[in-house]
Amino acid sequence: MAQQHREMTGTDTAGALLAAHLNAQATEFLRSLRLHRESTTDAQGAEESLEAARALRRAARRIGATLHTFRPLLDPEWASSLRPELAWLSGTLAQEHAYATRLDRLLESLHRLSGQPTVPVPAVGNRAAGRHGWAQPPVQSTETETSAPRGLTVGAAKAAALLERQLTLAKTRAHSTALQAFGSSRFHAVADNVAVLASEVPLTSTSEDLKPLAAQAESDLTEAVSALPLGQAGHPYNAGALVHGLASDTAPDAQDAPWLKVRSLLRLHRYAEEVLLGHATLEPRIADASHALNVHREAAAAAAAAAQAARTPRIAPATAYALGVLHADQRHEVEAARFAFQQAWLHEAVSTR
Amino acid sequence: MAQQHREMTGTDTAGALLAAHLNAQATEFLRSLRLHRESTTDAQGAEESLEAARALRRAARRIGATLHTFRPLLDPEWASSLRPELAWLSGTLAQEHAYATRLDRLLESLHRLSGQPTVPVPAVGNRAAGRHGWAQPPVQSTETETSAPRGLTVGAAKAAALLERQLTLAKTRAHSTALQAFGSSRFHAVADNVAVLASEVPLTSTSEDLKPLAAQAESDLTEAVSALPLGQAGHPYNAGALVHGLASDTAPDAQDAPWLKVRSLLRLHRYAEEVLLGHATLEPRIADASHALNVHREAAAAAAAAAQAARTPRIAPATAYALGVLHADQRHEVEAARFAFQQAWLHEAVSTR
Repeated sequence: MAQQHREMTGTDTAGALLAAHLNAQATEFLRSLRLHRESTTDAQGAEESLEAARALRRAARRIGATLHTFRPLLDPEWASSLRPELAWLSGTLAQEHAYATRLDRLLESLHRLSGQPTVPVPAVGNRAAGRHGWAQPPVQSTETETSAPRGLTVGAAKAAALLERQLTLAKTRAHSTALQAFGSSRFHAVADNVAVLASEVPLTSTSEDLKPLAAQAESDLTEAVSALPLGQAGHPYNAGALVHGLASDTAPDAQDAPWLKVRSLLRLHRYAEEVLLGHATLEPRIADASHALNVHREAAAAAAAAAQAARTPRIAPATAYALGVLHADQRHEVEAARFAFQQAWLHEAVSTR
Repeated sequence: MAQQHREMTGTDTAGALLAAHLNAQATEFLRSLRLHRESTTDAQGAEESLEAARALRRAARRIGATLHTFRPLLDPEWASSLRPELAWLSGTLAQEHAYATRLDRLLESLHRLSGQPTVPVPAVGNRAAGRHGWAQPPVQSTETETSAPRGLTVGAAKAAALLERQLTLAKTRAHSTALQAFGSSRFHAVADNVAVLASEVPLTSTSEDLKPLAAQAESDLTEAVSALPLGQAGHPYNAGALVHGLASDTAPDAQDAPWLKVRSLLRLHRYAEEVLLGHATLEPRIADASHALNVHREAAAAAAAAAQAARTPRIAPATAYALGVLHADQRHEVEAARFAFQQAWLHEAVSTR
């Protein structure tokens, strides 16, 4: 069927390229979904399950981005209804992994701040598997509390235990939510729609050129980047990211928003390029810029988690102090990520001139 | 008498230069001491008193450094006994000012971290005068506590009040210690020795050249700089200064020691250059490097003060959290100062090649 479709639009490069890309991504989506179902029924399949979920999210993001960027070629109603559903799906699936990554990042930072380069491997084996896997939901073991303090000062150890408790709970909830999502009729509707894409892409116009649409995605990105305070970001140790470190909660969010927006637009640009080029090779500079914005997002979320944990009632002052140091450390990672982005972006702008 | 001495050694450049410099600095020392005595008896003389104390310390540092660097030309026993006494004097006089600067730095940082660029001027006028002046010892007023919270969150305000209380107490003690020092027989012995220098420099050898001795001071500096981790420091956001942010107390001290040593040696080098050139003009790069090392020292001391305040028993978690953020912020200023030093130093090395 996909083959037939490609033959039908064989002479039309724009439509064919778009359809081929959506076919391929939809096929990848369905393959990952099947793998994921198989691995979750297998008790040893934690790693495969994780990998399948990642591939599923990756395909969902690419389909959603393609529906958005090249919407003039597609059935508008169908595309605009599917896209938020794909975003919901990949967002829901991302949560558990995000909490696990955040906890890893915070524990690593606590150990680094204590002069210990690496997080000691916990004595209990179920933590690592429980953190990364899908098949084995994490057990809220009392072991996690006793494993954290090793080699840390009292405050850092208590902060580690508190963060581990809070983020493990959040991760467990995200795991349940993801499992519920997989069983929901909403998910089945998304999967059905993607199955359609794997065979027949609902093109409305096949004559429109893809390049101006991809160029639009790029110019949206460029415009958003030009709104960033890159001058400040390029000056090392500007202390900009911690300016609201002791202000109300919403202040860093407002400061981070333009960077998160650029991160989304950079993804749209990358995925549009993939459609045009037919493969996923990435310019090193774009890869660096993407990486910096991913670190920005993770560090900002980790800093917020540390600040949130510090508002837990009845914690010891030593714990709160460690969380304060941790928060500031992560906000400095945010600042460092902005610097890295500025360096990567400037590098690109200079070399393409 | 000084004039006579200069005539006696007029043909001998090395001895004459050294004697002229020590004469001038000793005269400045005695002038500052007289000014300081006059201003402390005058209730309105806080600013003059402060300026006089600064000039006194400046002269004491230069005399001490000159005695050290050019010791082969001087009566060794006399020079080696006077130098630690000058260090004691300038150290004692520096304390009150150092506590005031530290408090200013920490309060400014707390306001910056709360998204407020400047520290609001307190309603009570005695704080500013009390902080900077010598003539008016600071009053531990309850006003200082109520003036701090303005515009800050609860944690930041409590941290500000705690730091203000602790550092004001330390400053008051330093003030008393300095006053006691001025009245001590130990101080009078130093002043008597400096008075000798103002008229007759006890030269033992007048034939020795000053340049190799100044060159030795420079090579000591270069050697100490080469022991610094400049490679790391030149990489922005290396997070090196906070590596022991949550470890035991002594860890940052060990990390900071080589930088403080370079700061001392850079001073010796600068003062030796002043003797050779006969004036105090400073290469911009050396000025930048000196400034960076001064910031390094102040930020490290401020970070330690924040960590120390966080160990106060029975403080609120919000206070401890704010102090943790503050500590990390100041350690990042330490890291930024290392970066600034590396930039200044590298700049110099490249341009003098």
